[in-house]
Amino acid sequence: MAKQEIIIIRYGHREVRDYRVTGHCGLVSRAFGAKKMIVCGEKDESIVNTITGVNKTWGKGMDIEFTDSWKSAVTKLKKKGFTIAHLTMYGLPVQEVEEELSTKKKLAVIIGSQKVEREVYNEADFNVAVTAQPHSEIAALAVFLDRVQKGVELSMDFKGAKCQIIPQEKGKKVINLKDLK
Amino acid sequence: MAKQEIIIIRYGHREVRDYRVTGHCGLVSRAFGAKKMIVCGEKDESIVNTITGVNKTWGKGMDIEFTDSWKSAVTKLKKKGFTIAHLTMYGLPVQEVEEELSTKKKLAVIIGSQKVEREVYNEADFNVAVTAQPHSEIAALAVFLDRVQKGVELSMDFKGAKCQIIPQEKGKKVINLKDLK
Repeated sequence: MAKQEIIIIRYGHREVRDYRVTGHCGLVSRAFGAKKMIVCGEKDESIVNTITGVNKTWGKGMDIEFTDSWKSAVTKLKKKGFTIAHLTMYGLPVQEVEEELSTKKKLAVIIGSQKVEREVYNEADFNVAVTAQPHSEIAALAVFLDRVQKGVELSMDFKGAKCQIIPQEKGKKVINLKDLK
Repeated sequence: MAKQEIIIIRYGHREVRDYRVTGHCGLVSRAFGAKKMIVCGEKDESIVNTITGVNKTWGKGMDIEFTDSWKSAVTKLKKKGFTIAHLTMYGLPVQEVEEELSTKKKLAVIIGSQKVEREVYNEADFNVAVTAQPHSEIAALAVFLDRVQKGVELSMDFKGAKCQIIPQEKGKKVINLKDLK
């Protein structure tokens, strides 16, 4: 796992419409070392199945939870000592705050979906922009996690994996770790 | 624009199913300095409208084209001197190839969607992995472009923008550039 304890808060997930985008956010969170994703919105079994399925094959990476209230989730995390970063194109450039954020032992990252209410900006300790251009919360999350963790997440091990990729110049090579035991 | 000339090739776009994901890919390509996105698949006006709408408000960033054949697109780009990088979890770690790729003046990046055929791996000059875990082509693209361009894309100007964001610790500040003229 990552050296920092990282939790992702997915704000405003709407089932069906957001399934694929929240799915991508979940897979990125896991692959980039987050311990947990908290989804604010309707409980969505398809997202849970996506993450647990990937955990089973590629190793234990991340838990997923649902909540009705982003605010109570944030309040609880603050009490536990988490710094709250909210990703928004209106915030401070990531390249100016990444150094400070990389020193935080506990970091929670809010990513939006539908229009984010003003209170999120106020509750966040840091509002952070990955470019000041409109693009994708999935992309912003990945670049943010890569920069704050200084790339250590790119070569993490995932415990309990059934399969592991051996990097190749061309083609695919996957070893079945269960066969090796 | 970015110092490198970067073109994104979106492999295997299927209208309706892929609209949101290809839309995110397009917006990321634009925000991270690509000159053009070539979408392989059915012509999809909604994607065109998304990109041209954002170009209009936030400045000229990227063209979009459609093609029936990824292979002829790749062949043409190779003839023009482009190096072809294909993003895949099975490839070489981005942290091992980013330095070499950052020296290429012309770089084309293939991102997959549905299952990618073996020929793509063979035609690519580099098969590149952003982690060896399954996650998101949107995230992989963003991290790849950020690393290869060493972050210069994060503070690019977009010519002809109507609006520009002034980064804030809390809240939103947007100036209307047309008012200033």
